[in-house]
Parts: sequence; structure tokens; C-alpha cells
Amino acid sequence: MKIAMLGAGNVATHLSKALINAGNPVAQVWSRDHNHAIELALQIGANSIVDIADITEDVDLVIIAVKDDAMSVVSAQILPQNSRIVVHTSGSTDIDLLNAHPKSGVLYPLQTFSKEIDLDFNEVPLCVEGSDADTQNMLLNLANQLSNKTQIVSSAERIKLHISAVFACNFTNHLYAIAHDLMLESAVSFELLKPLIMETVNKINNHDPKSVQTGPAIRNDTSTMNKHLKILESKPDLHDLYRLISQSIVKMSPISECPAK
Amino acid sequence: MKIAMLGAGNVATHLSKALINAGNPVAQVWSRDHNHAIELALQIGANSIVDIADITEDVDLVIIAVKDDAMSVVSAQILPQNSRIVVHTSGSTDIDLLNAHPKSGVLYPLQTFSKEIDLDFNEVPLCVEGSDADTQNMLLNLANQLSNKTQIVSSAERIKLHISAVFACNFTNHLYAIAHDLMLESAVSFELLKPLIMETVNKINNHDPKSVQTGPAIRNDTSTMNKHLKILESKPDLHDLYRLISQSIVKMSPISECPAK
Repeated sequence: MKIAMLGAGNVATHLSKALINAGNPVAQVWSRDHNHAIELALQIGANSIVDIADITEDVDLVIIAVKDDAMSVVSAQILPQNSRIVVHTSGSTDIDLLNAHPKSGVLYPLQTFSKEIDLDFNEVPLCVEGSDADTQNMLLNLANQLSNKTQIVSSAERIKLHISAVFACNFTNHLYAIAHDLMLESAVSFELLKPLIMETVNKINNHDPKSVQTGPAIRNDTSTMNKHLKILESKPDLHDLYRLISQSIVKMSPISECPAK
Repeated sequence: MKIAMLGAGNVATHLSKALINAGNPVAQVWSRDHNHAIELALQIGANSIVDIADITEDVDLVIIAVKDDAMSVVSAQILPQNSRIVVHTSGSTDIDLLNAHPKSGVLYPLQTFSKEIDLDFNEVPLCVEGSDADTQNMLLNLANQLSNKTQIVSSAERIKLHISAVFACNFTNHLYAIAHDLMLESAVSFELLKPLIMETVNKINNHDPKSVQTGPAIRNDTSTMNKHLKILESKPDLHDLYRLISQSIVKMSPISECPAK
């Protein structure tokens, strides 16, 4: 199978390497910034191309791994061919975006990628969708070579999964960044928080997260929450975040659902 | 050393067990709900007492591990004695709250405790403060028997640490709970998100969290964020949270700090 990769960012990089490892090398790489295409092509032994029109006719699979808002422009530049499958890698983009192509699909890796951090792609859940049964089977077959955790997921379900991932991953990382910045103002190191952060994650391996919620908000400990809010007064953004997330925890609490208010 | 534990919740339970393991058994347990005191006392081979006034004169160390807003009432009921140290375990309560007692201090375990989940107290960071050098040394000595990660932390620094812990632990757990609930509406299991959650945490072991932020907000990918917000329209609380946290990520982004706006 001859593959062209459109995009040279985090997802394109990790997916290209996983394809190589599974014996499906990428032949051509395109990126809006040609220097990025050259850089990735060099790493994976592919050819970089300047224009999407340079995708050779014998390419069987085109993978669009660009920013979501660039996807439709990129797709429109790929020549539709009956024998070619065009897929994207986006969590939040419907498969319909690729309707111009006779065979289309989605390969959505549910993981957080950074170019400089290696990870075992075998353990990355890979969500697959195809425009028809044959295409879907072909893509699932390829996905199974890349990962031990593949699943057929429809466009409607995939976007919900993506939203959940944003909450559970992107947003939690931002909370770590906030905690990190707060500790920079103190003589105490962020390192001291790491056992707590690890234990918080370990807990949800065997427990429904709601059942192991701790902290001032779930106890409705307004005295502590008010002390914290007072200290955060000089940081309006954090003050608002603290208030809103605490309110959300209080609402989720079983206590607040008690009919005797 | 003879110890009395006031409180029978998560912190009181784990701290009592750690004290026993270090050869410092708790002699007396009190709780506002006497049944809870009986329950903990049975577990740790202590006597339960009905009134705080029942603390025997020979008790050298009284540990107040109750809800923050109950702490001052509880402290006021402990007879001040020159030879007795009274400590609390709160992240957000100043040591001054215990001023009525000649010797006072703080033993703040920086960890998330659930009664039913065992953990290795040796790995729990223990923040120590004392009203005077002798008391502080004595408490640090005790703390070193309980944990390998002890540190002297002033009241002013401790509350900042507590706020950071709320962001990095309590709030992240709530985001897991939100993701978990969203997945309940889908045919896809929350399990599929766990590799992503683990990788998000693993990343910050070796990287500044800000430097490994991923997701639509850090890319300022408004198209994806708007799609997500549209789906969350039926859930106003989640809609507001999504918007506010995304805005906060955009503000933290190095791109938004670029002078050329």
C-alpha cells in the first residue's frame, strides 16, 4: 500500500512512525509549511512534496492530519479516485467532510502527542470509521497493525469522545500548569504535588471518579473555599475558574441531591 | 508519647494507621458522631471518647483532624496544658487558630485520602509547622517516622500549596467525572480514555505542564471549540466550564503573548 501523509505535526509524525513500524512506509509528505514536510520526510525516509497535486496516482491511501479548520481546503485539493481511500485523523470532524472522495474514512488516534515524546503506538486507542463496509474493513485491518486497541466509532460518537478527551486530558493538563505557576510564587516545589497527582489518577483505575471526589467543594466547606478565593482575588482568571469548577463539584455532589435542603 | 485523635474521617483514619505503623499508637479517638469514633477506635485499638473533655491529662499530643470550619470550636474545648502539643492537619488553616495552646503546630498530609483505598503513607508529603523551634523539631521528628517526604512549610505557604492541590487534584478528578458521565451517553466506554489520561500525567513527570499542552484551545482552533460548544449547549454547566477553561488555556498560550496581535 502506498501512503501519502498530509500534515507534519504531532499526529502526522507519530502516525507515520507507527505506519513504518508496521511495515507500511509513508511515500510522500506534504505540509502547508514545506520546511516541516522536509523535516518529517527526512525522519521517515519519504519524499516531501510542495503541492497536494503532486500526490502520485499510485497512492492508495491519503491521510489528512492537518488542523481541523484546514481539513476541508486540503480535501478539496486531493484528486478523487475510485481506487483511493482518503481519511482524516480528527476527533471532531464528520466523515461527511470527505464526501467528494468515493472511498473515505477516519483514523482517529485517541492520545495526546508531542513530537519530542516517544510513546508506544500499540497502546494508543485507534477509532476507525469507513464510508462503506469494504473501506471500513480495510481501514480496521490497517489500524489493527498499528494498535492493539482499535474500535469502530461513528462520527456522532467520536465527537463526544473528543469532548470527553478535552475535559479529561487537555483541561487537566491546564490545571497542572496553573498549579505549577502558583507554586513558582512559593518556596515549595511543584514536585511536592506529584504524589498527589499520581494518586488522583491511580484512584480512577478502579473507581468511578465521582465516588472518589475529595476536597473542599465536595464537602461544601465554604469556609475553606472562601479563604482560597480571597487569596486568588489578585488573579481574576483563576478566581473565576476556582469558583465555577467548585460550583460544578457541589452540584454533582450526592449531598446537593438530597431532597431535604 | 500518648496521642488523642479528634476526628474519624479520611485524614484521621490514614494518619492513625500511619502512627500505629511507626510505633506511636493513638490512645483516644473522638468524633462529633460518636459512632464514627467507635468505628475508628475499633480499627486501631484505641478508646473512643464521647466528649473532648474526656481527653486524659497524660495525653502529650492532640491531633485535630476535623472539617476546617469545625476546627476552632474543637480547639476551644481542649484544655490548654503546658506540656501538651495541639496540632491540626488542615492545608488552609493558619497555625494561629491554635494560639490558646502553649505549644501548637500543623501536620498537613498532602495527599487525597479515601477510607477504603490503602496507600503507602511513607510516600505522602507531610508539611510541618510548629509554634516554636522545640515544638517544630519534635513534630518534624514524628513526621519523619511517618513519611520519607517531610518539609517545614509556613502557614502562608501552606495555603498556596493547598490551592495548587485543589487545582491539580480535586479539580482534575472532577474533570474525569465529567468525561465519565459524557461517555455514559455513548456506546464507547470511559475505559478507552484511560491511556490518554495516564499519558497526560506521565508527560508532566519530565516536562513543564505548559510546554506539553495540547488540544483545540492551545491551537486556538475555534472551529473545533465551537463544534464542541454546540454539542454542550444542552448542558449549560459544562458549556460554561468548557468556555472558561479554554479561554484560560488560550490566554496562557505563548501565541497570545506575541506583541503583534
